[in-house]
Amino acid sequence: MATAETLFRQRGVAKSSIADIAHELGMSPANVFKHFGSKAVLVDAICDRHISRMIERFTPFDEPLPAPDRLARVACKLMEAHLQDLRDNPFFLEMIFVMSDADLPSGRHYEELVQNLFRDLIRQGVESGVYHCSDCAETSRHVAAAFVSVLHPVFLVNSGEEELLQRCAGIAGLVNAALQNPLEK
Amino acid sequence: MATAETLFRQRGVAKSSIADIAHELGMSPANVFKHFGSKAVLVDAICDRHISRMIERFTPFDEPLPAPDRLARVACKLMEAHLQDLRDNPFFLEMIFVMSDADLPSGRHYEELVQNLFRDLIRQGVESGVYHCSDCAETSRHVAAAFVSVLHPVFLVNSGEEELLQRCAGIAGLVNAALQNPLEK
Repeated sequence: MATAETLFRQRGVAKSSIADIAHELGMSPANVFKHFGSKAVLVDAICDRHISRMIERFTPFDEPLPAPDRLARVACKLMEAHLQDLRDNPFFLEMIFVMSDADLPSGRHYEELVQNLFRDLIRQGVESGVYHCSDCAETSRHVAAAFVSVLHPVFLVNSGEEELLQRCAGIAGLVNAALQNPLEK
Repeated sequence: MATAETLFRQRGVAKSSIADIAHELGMSPANVFKHFGSKAVLVDAICDRHISRMIERFTPFDEPLPAPDRLARVACKLMEAHLQDLRDNPFFLEMIFVMSDADLPSGRHYEELVQNLFRDLIRQGVESGVYHCSDCAETSRHVAAAFVSVLHPVFLVNSGEEELLQRCAGIAGLVNAALQNPLEK
């Protein structure tokens, strides 16, 4: 995976083959294929590792802030982590585009991790009496979907950071108004 | 534009050149370049025409429904129109991917049209006393951003229709709860 990442970074994903990776490692392509049945599987594994590491940084996030501030803050920090990741690893975006038709498991895994992050934040808000929500798990799926335009790499490339920060704050404002609505069932 | 569309549909966007389009029309490539300075400009013009037509279908949407039902309905109908469009014109998605780095004006124009659609819906809701919102134009930008995961072609391809309908209804539920929050400034 490290060798593949280095090659992807140097040449791009589309121009790096399993044979190239095997050559770098001084082994036969068959040996690489034994572990990763295709380039898609390899890309998926690299994405998944990055994603899990990125989300891990957020799990211990435990500041003594009111739930709405916390949710807005986490969404914004997560977006900034993505921006940093894309700056550090420009080949990431190519991975996502090259593989966009493949519907890789890492994409679903990422969705799940983000949903769980929001679910925990919403639960804490409900427990502290600030949020009103009858099904935190279901609501967190909709909240995660509402943040896609600031958390999906496709949207992070073509927008300026200032515009993204405003959009992220705007969506957080909507989500917080919805979760705090005392009339909401 | 019609000739380009036909070629894009038959061969794909990446494999159709301005020279191919000129050849089909029995004219010189210079003649095509005179009108469309690059393939990106041509793709942009085709996208823009489709987008404008699609949104036009929604402008006269004038059912006597309460604002929240109306907003949910419009979002869902707009999503379904996109799904139909992608089914009828599979080369659309390729256009979007091929051109994703170009940040074409048609993309911004589409954003604006969707924002205006939501802005008018929100204004009607405020006028009828159902929604609370101090800046409808700004709020509509955030609402449009919240719906990106059901209105952007990238997300419409890899998700099942049932999942998309649920997601769209879920986001509409959040947005409606936010806009109806009497505590919201």
